Amino acid sequence: METAELWKKYQEKMFVISSYDLVISTTYFDADTIAPIKGADYRNDRLAYLYGEVFSLQTDPELLELLEKLNSAEDLDDEKKRIVKWHLEDFNKMRYIPKELYVEYSQVQLEANDVWKKAKSENNYKLFEPYLFRLIELTKKTLEYRQTDLKGYNILLDDYEPGMNIEKYDRFFGLIKERLIPLIRRISKAEKIDTAFVYDYYPVEQQRKFMKEILDYMHYDFDAGVLAETEHPFSNAISKYDSRITTHYYENNLMSSVFSVVHEAGHATYNNQVRDDLAETFVFSNMSSGMHESQSRLMENYLARTSAFWDNLFPKVKELFPEQLKDVDQKKFVRAANASECSLIRTDADELTYPLHILIRYEIEKGIFDGSIDLNSLENIWNEKYEEYLGIRPSCSSEGILQDVHWAGGMFGYFPTYALGSGYAAQFMHAMRKDLDVDQLMRDNKFTVIKDWLREHIHQYGGLYLPEEQIRIATGEEFNPEYYVDYLTEKYTSLYFPE
Amino acid sequence: METAELWKKYQEKMFVISSYDLVISTTYFDADTIAPIKGADYRNDRLAYLYGEVFSLQTDPELLELLEKLNSAEDLDDEKKRIVKWHLEDFNKMRYIPKELYVEYSQVQLEANDVWKKAKSENNYKLFEPYLFRLIELTKKTLEYRQTDLKGYNILLDDYEPGMNIEKYDRFFGLIKERLIPLIRRISKAEKIDTAFVYDYYPVEQQRKFMKEILDYMHYDFDAGVLAETEHPFSNAISKYDSRITTHYYENNLMSSVFSVVHEAGHATYNNQVRDDLAETFVFSNMSSGMHESQSRLMENYLARTSAFWDNLFPKVKELFPEQLKDVDQKKFVRAANASECSLIRTDADELTYPLHILIRYEIEKGIFDGSIDLNSLENIWNEKYEEYLGIRPSCSSEGILQDVHWAGGMFGYFPTYALGSGYAAQFMHAMRKDLDVDQLMRDNKFTVIKDWLREHIHQYGGLYLPEEQIRIATGEEFNPEYYVDYLTEKYTSLYFPE
Repeated sequence: METAELWKKYQEKMFVISSYDLVISTTYFDADTIAPIKGADYRNDRLAYLYGEVFSLQTDPELLELLEKLNSAEDLDDEKKRIVKWHLEDFNKMRYIPKELYVEYSQVQLEANDVWKKAKSENNYKLFEPYLFRLIELTKKTLEYRQTDLKGYNILLDDYEPGMNIEKYDRFFGLIKERLIPLIRRISKAEKIDTAFVYDYYPVEQQRKFMKEILDYMHYDFDAGVLAETEHPFSNAISKYDSRITTHYYENNLMSSVFSVVHEAGHATYNNQVRDDLAETFVFSNMSSGMHESQSRLMENYLARTSAFWDNLFPKVKELFPEQLKDVDQKKFVRAANASECSLIRTDADELTYPLHILIRYEIEKGIFDGSIDLNSLENIWNEKYEEYLGIRPSCSSEGILQDVHWAGGMFGYFPTYALGSGYAAQFMHAMRKDLDVDQLMRDNKFTVIKDWLREHIHQYGGLYLPEEQIRIATGEEFNPEYYVDYLTEKYTSLYFPE
Repeated sequence: METAELWKKYQEKMFVISSYDLVISTTYFDADTIAPIKGADYRNDRLAYLYGEVFSLQTDPELLELLEKLNSAEDLDDEKKRIVKWHLEDFNKMRYIPKELYVEYSQVQLEANDVWKKAKSENNYKLFEPYLFRLIELTKKTLEYRQTDLKGYNILLDDYEPGMNIEKYDRFFGLIKERLIPLIRRISKAEKIDTAFVYDYYPVEQQRKFMKEILDYMHYDFDAGVLAETEHPFSNAISKYDSRITTHYYENNLMSSVFSVVHEAGHATYNNQVRDDLAETFVFSNMSSGMHESQSRLMENYLARTSAFWDNLFPKVKELFPEQLKDVDQKKFVRAANASECSLIRTDADELTYPLHILIRYEIEKGIFDGSIDLNSLENIWNEKYEEYLGIRPSCSSEGILQDVHWAGGMFGYFPTYALGSGYAAQFMHAMRKDLDVDQLMRDNKFTVIKDWLREHIHQYGGLYLPEEQIRIATGEEFNPEYYVDYLTEKYTSLYFPE
């Protein structure tokens, strides 16, 4: 068969898989946004079945044959070669896992997600614990079938972030501990930034209008996306042309939804700006978790927490909440958006203490998979680590071990990419600021120029490149976490200890 | 194979089909409620592919073999026999249609639906016309493959309402013309009912609260359903446990959403009350269109337009709209809800003129399929029939031939069931009123007793019985359209010409 014909056949198979992905992904979005509770069992049983169907398509021997033939074809262009290579690697991750195990795992994930919601709202860890144990057990069982030189937790770390492993993460978090913990301790004794106004009453209806303003300022394309409401904000790229985000409104917190929305819009923009001819290929959505997170963090922290970002938006938020903000000027607003304080909830954490929340999860996951942690004391270990690193102890499960959805989805190995992504973002920003006067552009209401830079240097490629390659392409350097700790150190030192 | 084992195998196949139905149905709901416009092509291509997959499952020879074996099994209980019989009939409707034709048809339907939306909003029939022609052509082509004694339009009529045909519909509509048109003419010269307040300004946010009140009063189960917002209200039973409805709010019309919501809740209640052990079988959703419509019309017209329905709700609507309704008492409110006037839009039509809207569509469809209508003059014929029967002529396509979604979905033969369903409902109400003091129950806030009656006599069976059987079960009589015309004649005579 000619290479062109092989490629065509391969695309046909991808089309079929993407058809399933589309409806499953949409159903999942629906389940998280509006689906009624009584429909959950009926839906979960059927979704688990379809996950099995997709698994069969993804591990179809004919697909493997096509991929192998394409992989050895000499006349395939470089980009297609990469697409085939990443797909083949992914195929090899799946192929040795028994389908029954995969379906069982999917079913438990779907159930665990529902039970976790209930457990969290009832503040009852014991309800969720057996599901967590089961997911850990099934994850370990699945790892046994993987044929790779890696072992245990390193397999999971590499799945979410190709090239990463315990050794590298230990080094990365070591730097964070060494450089940031002393600063955090110092700040905890410094004069507090006044954030009282943030916790005034902000009606949801007005907040909705505010989010619309923010997304319009960022040129989020509502014709190619949706802003919906969920218990836990997330983004979901159903396709390049339908890249959705969600948020959660709290009546007594102005900032929570703001930075959630900007964060998720960062994710959505990544998928939205993948090059058209890559949008229906394997690399549309295979970017590493760290890379994806770098793009959300970049918007959330490196752009939206600057004063320049608010030049155009602050008058609007004043207009929407005249009473609540009557004594607040832009400077006070932006300072409050950057205040640092040790807190219990990861998603509400400030930029500086955030990586400690991740460090805690990373250390626990490491312990789960090397067997050094007694699963029965998981909650206690969680609480102790919060006390050790952040100096505060959760008083209940929902603000402790139950706060995050990830483990309920069996996503072990994912958390560390959150901190890593923040690290990548620091380096990307450093490169971007060499090319662009970022602050001036935001002041001039030219956010699209910033998005264009991101498209040109990062987004357009989707997951065509490994993280290390992508970082080199966009910044001309290897990944260097010093950018990250330097950025945080400088920013927070000048914020809390101005000279 | 033992019958029990055959049944088990059959159920497994049904489970697979229902898995696809679930995700496709959810994706369809998502598309109509929130999905962004730019994702449509990507989605439609993939949905059309999946429709083809479902078609293959539905026409799977192994399924046929199972059905045939079960059909001839002597130890199958009566209800299961019926399930198999209806499924086999459905199988035979599908089996001779070529898959490519089916997929092509699905693709055109999906596209036509999007084009129709655009055409309607731009008021441009010419944009939609080629899609309409294509759907008519493909429908005719599909009919050629059907192996049945019926011919042409009669096949379609029988598909949506088993047992119905042109002859019977002609007789039904003949009665309507004979008995109702003279009354409509008389009313058009009578003193008008004051409905001005209906078209005051009613903020959407308040209307949403009002719908919640109405649905609570009707004991609509929000844990097993959703009220969403769409351009065109519809209901969608994703499962017995997830039976959804949608509405559309008009700021300058209080009644439109009210009766839409009650109507769709009538549909949802039907699926919601199907017996548990039938909920995952073929008869969960195969009730005839007329039967389904009878349940929505019964709630919308025969219950919600009575004064008793408003005894508990009127104080609430007054509270929500104190200014708008300051000069309106319950009597005036209910009279306005029943005012009859010849109008252009079917979905806003009153109970009395409604069947004329259906008659027009029925006559046009008949003409399309017997070839007596020149397709190029469809819009003109539409307008002329409105002038003939209702005495008014649409001034533009969006309030004329473009108003309904049905033809864009290729649903030819569906419309007549709307009028027929209203007829069934009259007979059901007559039977219900013999058993229950319906008005007193509504006044006493006991709407559940009414729902219980409907469950016991109709809903629990799903589509286990043919319409004619179901009517006999619930009313002890054959279908008799006299109940319908008598009801309308009495109601509207006493409303407009009180003695």
